[in-house]
Amino acid sequence: ESGLNLSGYGRFGIGYLEDRTATTSSTTAGGAVVTNSNETDDAILISRFRLNIDGFTETDGGVRFEGRVRLQADEDSDTGEADSAGLNGARFSVIYGGFRVDAGNVAGSFDNLDDYFGTEPGLEEFLGQYSGVNYSFLEYDSTGSGDNAVFFQYAVGDFAFSASYDQNTIFQGAGATSDRDRWDVGASYTFNNITASLVYGETDEGDGIEKESLTVFTLSAELNDFYGTLFLADDDVADDDENGTAYGFSVAYDLGAATTLQLVYGDGSADSDTRNIGVGAIYDLGAGATLRGAVGEVKDGDEDSRIQADFGVWFNF
Amino acid sequence: ESGLNLSGYGRFGIGYLEDRTATTSSTTAGGAVVTNSNETDDAILISRFRLNIDGFTETDGGVRFEGRVRLQADEDSDTGEADSAGLNGARFSVIYGGFRVDAGNVAGSFDNLDDYFGTEPGLEEFLGQYSGVNYSFLEYDSTGSGDNAVFFQYAVGDFAFSASYDQNTIFQGAGATSDRDRWDVGASYTFNNITASLVYGETDEGDGIEKESLTVFTLSAELNDFYGTLFLADDDVADDDENGTAYGFSVAYDLGAATTLQLVYGDGSADSDTRNIGVGAIYDLGAGATLRGAVGEVKDGDEDSRIQADFGVWFNF
Amino acid sequence: ESGLNLSGYGRFGIGYLEDRTATTSSTTAGGAVVTNSNETDDAILISRFRLNIDGFTETDGGVRFEGRVRLQADEDSDTGEADSAGLNGARFSVIYGGFRVDAGNVAGSFDNLDDYFGTEPGLEEFLGQYSGVNYSFLEYDSTGSGDNAVFFQYAVGDFAFSASYDQNTIFQGAGATSDRDRWDVGASYTFNNITASLVYGETDEGDGIEKESLTVFTLSAELNDFYGTLFLADDDVADDDENGTAYGFSVAYDLGAATTLQLVYGDGSADSDTRNIGVGAIYDLGAGATLRGAVGEVKDGDEDSRIQADFGVWFNF
Repeated sequence: ESGLNLSGYGRFGIGYLEDRTATTSSTTAGGAVVTNSNETDDAILISRFRLNIDGFTETDGGVRFEGRVRLQADEDSDTGEADSAGLNGARFSVIYGGFRVDAGNVAGSFDNLDDYFGTEPGLEEFLGQYSGVNYSFLEYDSTGSGDNAVFFQYAVGDFAFSASYDQNTIFQGAGATSDRDRWDVGASYTFNNITASLVYGETDEGDGIEKESLTVFTLSAELNDFYGTLFLADDDVADDDENGTAYGFSVAYDLGAATTLQLVYGDGSADSDTRNIGVGAIYDLGAGATLRGAVGEVKDGDEDSRIQADFGVWFNF
Repeated sequence: ESGLNLSGYGRFGIGYLEDRTATTSSTTAGGAVVTNSNETDDAILISRFRLNIDGFTETDGGVRFEGRVRLQADEDSDTGEADSAGLNGARFSVIYGGFRVDAGNVAGSFDNLDDYFGTEPGLEEFLGQYSGVNYSFLEYDSTGSGDNAVFFQYAVGDFAFSASYDQNTIFQGAGATSDRDRWDVGASYTFNNITASLVYGETDEGDGIEKESLTVFTLSAELNDFYGTLFLADDDVADDDENGTAYGFSVAYDLGAATTLQLVYGDGSADSDTRNIGVGAIYDLGAGATLRGAVGEVKDGDEDSRIQADFGVWFNF
Repeated sequence: ESGLNLSGYGRFGIGYLEDRTATTSSTTAGGAVVTNSNETDDAILISRFRLNIDGFTETDGGVRFEGRVRLQADEDSDTGEADSAGLNGARFSVIYGGFRVDAGNVAGSFDNLDDYFGTEPGLEEFLGQYSGVNYSFLEYDSTGSGDNAVFFQYAVGDFAFSASYDQNTIFQGAGATSDRDRWDVGASYTFNNITASLVYGETDEGDGIEKESLTVFTLSAELNDFYGTLFLADDDVADDDENGTAYGFSVAYDLGAATTLQLVYGDGSADSDTRNIGVGAIYDLGAGATLRGAVGEVKDGDEDSRIQADFGVWFNF
């Protein structure tokens, strides 16, 4: 059996960001490039159109091969205008029973862990319990080519294991190159309605460059109308002002048949860590359409905190 | 109910333009950029491939949400070569009964009015009754990101009302910004086979820049094998040589079961207005395929008029 | 009848190239651009995702119109990273009985001749019997806009005829232009399991530039589990070190129900011609999925030969 699945979603609405600014650059008569920070509209029209193009073949023996390319259009949150749709890098998968291998534009162990993200309030899901994390892990790229990497996953009973490996050649100029290695491993254990997960990853950019790493522990519970996640992380990055622990939690609660309320908090111990606090709501219109909105406060290190909010409709197809 | 609709058309054939020229630029040894006007082939291979990608969700309550991205490839009419296909900016819609709201890459009240365009002869629909208009109204962009704007439409009985609003932040350099506002409103009334429409729009680029506006009145009739439109407009733009009235008409007549003849005339009162005169024919092959062609004269202001013609096949899918 | 067909394939695996290098450029302090040749990883993750988007309309009279755009993502074989997916130029077709006309981004008579390519070992089909050919014929472009050209094909009984014509305007700067003409004609005759084909093509870039040409003769046989092709060509190109005969053969043999073995040899008489020698294997997993791999030697003129190999999975959808 083989075929092509097309699926995706649209979302659009209003987004508000206190003191929204757009950065532009201009060239002076003397040839110098000057960067300008422009005040722009706090409230803009936000939107996303996403289409997943999934080709697949499944052999009689039960081995499934998949290839995915994503088509996506987003608004430009700086200028308030919209961008043309684009295509991303392809991801390929081999799936057999509880075993899965992804290659190409893949998500690593952090990005594949739902409890890393918990519940993210807002039409644009702009608030997260992970806001204090500064490590750059292997992520699926919806609008670019992504990293050409490999991800493994194995699920057996209540356990799930994962690992990823990403290797880059960095061209340093004058014919010199160096290698960047990035890998991660993770494990999850589910007992009744509780899931505990531990993921570790590190990046080695070669001799003379400080190695970076991230450890994340999450604990989530799903009980009737309640879903909640506790998040604890330790990131060791090159910038000392971003080093240290990151912590947070997020909660979703179904209030009656159609409404879900969300609460999120994320912060970190380092001076430059980002704090997220906010609440959101989702109202189900049926048939895969929801109204969504959130209001929150985003604070980068010692800078003034900024209020961010959004509201709109999300429809799956 | 939700899903994805794919539809579109292909068209290809031969296009002729008297004294076709292509503009190229080159850099001199001294570093100056020189613009060259090159004579090129008058007859070229013309083509378009268009695919509409429409995701939709319709709730039990009858509210329909839609998102559209268009994939399109065209020939380059200057060089006679073809361009790769591209994706445009997304348009989102909410539709409920006679009410419709579009957001994103939208068409405004002028672009949504069929009688603005009337019948346009040619495989490339290169002649139009509106040729004397110089105002730049809010248009759906098939090959770019478009304007991130909003359009409203309401149809009740024989009346239809529409309005659009488009706001841009213009980055003037050195951190200064200004706002450009553009809006339009329109109304149509249909009595029997006659439709009368009036649309007004204006653009305000801010202090010290002349406001521009356009008023359009159209009257169309559809009687058995005949469809005709009268077009009258007043455009008030910054360039005085393009200011003033624009007028025209277009007629389509079904000659027997498979053939349609078209006639179009468009002109304006201003010195630099463009005049279009031409005739076209459409021959129906069935199953959504047609042969189409036209020949016409295009005259920009006081310049020499040029003959333009095309012929080819158009097939819907 | 009209509609849209979506089809394609994914393939991914490991590719090895001895002494793989990537070329980068950098700018010195003095403003000079320097080109660097960087050693990079010999073994990389290779992949392709291809989706054909085919719109079609078929009239009651049996005339079929088609338009195709291809969406494709590949790895970058220099850096070992992957590229985002892109869209190519559109191809349009009219098909009626044994007659076919293509317009737009078309393949010419060489590119449409299966026996030109024979069997190409490897997941990436990186070895070919045609390796000694240096003439640039009209090719379908899967990742770019292609040439805006025309191709004709007519099949009657055991005979097939083809021809293509491609015309370009070259903008030489300072407003001067010249025309490039490229055409080819071909004929094939099939008797029992044997097919003989002869194709000739030439390119004329205008006054003062040497005309280039290519003549190809192929003889192929398909006998039970065996498919083999003999390839003989004469190319007359501007570079004398690439001029002369090119020759080769390729063989595929089905070993049992699921395995196919491939052997290919290609070379030329000129000093700078490229030689390809290699073997490959295909193992059928069913449902359109295969495992494929090859190992071969690629030698450009007098340079050191390099070993190239790959292995991976190919799945159609």
